[in-house]
Amino acid sequence: MLKQTTVIKEQKIKLHSKIELNYQSIMLELAQNLIRKPSITPSDQGCCDLIGERLQAIGFKLEFMNQNSVSNLWAKRGSGHPVVVFAGHTDVVPPGQNAKWETPAFIPVIKDGFLHGRGASDMKGSLAAMVVAVEQFVAMYPEHHGAIGFMLTSDEEGIAVEGTRHIVDNLLERNEKIDCAIVGEPTTERLLGDSIRIGRRGSINCKITLHGKQGHVGYPEQLINPIHKSSRLIHKLSSKRWDMPSRYFPSTSCQLVKVHSESGAMNVTPADLELWFNFRYSPRNSFEKIKAYVEKKIIKYGLKSDIEWDHEAEPYLTKRGSLRKCVQSVIQKQCGIKPKLTTGGGISDGRFIKQIARQVIELGPSNKTIHQANERVSIEELDQLRQLYFKLLENLLLK
Amino acid sequence: MLKQTTVIKEQKIKLHSKIELNYQSIMLELAQNLIRKPSITPSDQGCCDLIGERLQAIGFKLEFMNQNSVSNLWAKRGSGHPVVVFAGHTDVVPPGQNAKWETPAFIPVIKDGFLHGRGASDMKGSLAAMVVAVEQFVAMYPEHHGAIGFMLTSDEEGIAVEGTRHIVDNLLERNEKIDCAIVGEPTTERLLGDSIRIGRRGSINCKITLHGKQGHVGYPEQLINPIHKSSRLIHKLSSKRWDMPSRYFPSTSCQLVKVHSESGAMNVTPADLELWFNFRYSPRNSFEKIKAYVEKKIIKYGLKSDIEWDHEAEPYLTKRGSLRKCVQSVIQKQCGIKPKLTTGGGISDGRFIKQIARQVIELGPSNKTIHQANERVSIEELDQLRQLYFKLLENLLLK
Ligand SMILES: [Zn+2]
Ligand SMILES: [Zn+2]
Repeated sequence: MLKQTTVIKEQKIKLHSKIELNYQSIMLELAQNLIRKPSITPSDQGCCDLIGERLQAIGFKLEFMNQNSVSNLWAKRGSGHPVVVFAGHTDVVPPGQNAKWETPAFIPVIKDGFLHGRGASDMKGSLAAMVVAVEQFVAMYPEHHGAIGFMLTSDEEGIAVEGTRHIVDNLLERNEKIDCAIVGEPTTERLLGDSIRIGRRGSINCKITLHGKQGHVGYPEQLINPIHKSSRLIHKLSSKRWDMPSRYFPSTSCQLVKVHSESGAMNVTPADLELWFNFRYSPRNSFEKIKAYVEKKIIKYGLKSDIEWDHEAEPYLTKRGSLRKCVQSVIQKQCGIKPKLTTGGGISDGRFIKQIARQVIELGPSNKTIHQANERVSIEELDQLRQLYFKLLENLLLK
Repeated sequence: MLKQTTVIKEQKIKLHSKIELNYQSIMLELAQNLIRKPSITPSDQGCCDLIGERLQAIGFKLEFMNQNSVSNLWAKRGSGHPVVVFAGHTDVVPPGQNAKWETPAFIPVIKDGFLHGRGASDMKGSLAAMVVAVEQFVAMYPEHHGAIGFMLTSDEEGIAVEGTRHIVDNLLERNEKIDCAIVGEPTTERLLGDSIRIGRRGSINCKITLHGKQGHVGYPEQLINPIHKSSRLIHKLSSKRWDMPSRYFPSTSCQLVKVHSESGAMNVTPADLELWFNFRYSPRNSFEKIKAYVEKKIIKYGLKSDIEWDHEAEPYLTKRGSLRKCVQSVIQKQCGIKPKLTTGGGISDGRFIKQIARQVIELGPSNKTIHQANERVSIEELDQLRQLYFKLLENLLLK
């Protein structure tokens, strides 16, 4: 009796291993096919079509919400709640200088346990893991509860105004709600699952043009030097403590990213100075507060200026709830580590999705090589990610 | 008896007027011939040859001290002391946008009492006035005391390292001394002689490259932003009181003329910042003091940097003495005004000449249109200048 059970168990494990290996190779093939498409932002190069076909084959209803040259896909299977959505982007950043790549950027190469190519980790690898996890889940549980969605765009790495934002606007219009969204951005620092994003800081871009009065250095009393005039403002912007850090957010930070002023001659002072800066702000602050503060200082310092504001991103935070709990426990069980909950790094499309999703989590592979030459992802890590996504579905969509 | 004297006096005045009118037209012709030569710095286009021939004809010994593409002429007549030298430059600044010129820059045009053309007031007009004043003086007083010199270069408006500096170096080598130097730079503000230069401030150019550490705005703790780092230094350089004004010199002033720092993206901070500035300094300060101060501050503010210094000009001052006294009294007698003694404006070749000349004065026509489109000089003013130069020679070289 005991022996027989063991045999069955062993057979089960063997079968399971075989199935898993099968899904791994299906996933790898999809990832390679995606990398082969040179979808430099905002070009999709057929990635959405490729994924769409596969989702359609397992019962998803597709809605292409393309906007100008941007491809957007909203796909859904099932009905009712919870609605669990996988979100991601098919576009990649340009490969940069070809000389630095050991293998061609858009030819996927498997080498030493890594899949190489632009997008391998940001985020065509995640896309393949999501799609195949869903394929496996639907094959095993065709009658799952609730619904599964896919929200894909080719405009995330660029200006990102016609991508996820556009899909979300459409869904908002028809009052469609999402319960849990899982974004495949590369969040891992060293080991898969060691760090997940539960929010992101907001982002503000600003350009200030300070106006002076050009003149000859020999007649300082006749000129207004905009470089001189800028120093107090630069000092204030770069040294001010904007707010206190909170549990999940560091303090708001302001970084000057460009300054330019020049007359063209060593004996003539410039007429204007241009200053570009970016705020990454926590929910303790706001666009309105920051804008008002900067404009008040400009008046206080007596600066003649033109100001252009661009509120690039609102901050978002997913509070403690079913998704956070579920992701944490799945990672702990599968990877044996406790994920760090962070809001660090740049901005992501999570900010748009949060408008219609109560809970948004970003979970993906290592971000070590993203946006660089020789971008790559560990195949083992990617396969673990696929299994994490699968387990999340099991946890969220099975009673 | 009384009647006869009056007649003789009237005849004398008539003759004198005729002679003066003659010299005026000789001067105008020379000025026009010089303007016709498009001697854009450092090209001489034969100006030195033209002047040299005329000086040779009245007993000057010529020494061409050309250096690379720069024409330099040192011409001398007579011997012993005092040595009175006229100094000037044959080169002009480029005409700039042709569209702005009402008459072609290099075609001299006489219109409404003005001579138009590039160089008319800076300083081909002065050169013509000097040469003709000397021709008249030598014709009237062939046995004058001391010596007359001409120091001409085609490298003043440019980098000015192979021009007057080179002549002065040569003269220094053979220990040749000058007692009085009259530089023909346009110094007049409204009425001829209302302002003369008795010195000039020194000039220092400096370029500082501040080194930071580039990074993503989302990770402020991992980067060193050179724009942020620059603000204290810029504030210090632009607000410091470097020294107190003295009788003839305003305080030393520092003007930042260029600043540039840029990463190329709004979410990335720059690696370096470049800062260019110029000091105009009074003899109360020095290159060494200023350099030491700036370098001390850079260390104090913890800045990693490369610094390039260019000590462009030493300050100079001609103290009260025979030349100042003589110029003042001649102007007062001829023009009926008391000249203002100044050290304002840019730098001039006076700084080099001062090395071998105890006394250097700059006296020339209006500086209202110099370096601009439609440069011009009043013919009446230019002729008065010729007479001032002539009277100076009478005062300095006759017993
Ligand atoms: Zn991404
Ligand atoms: Zn000049």
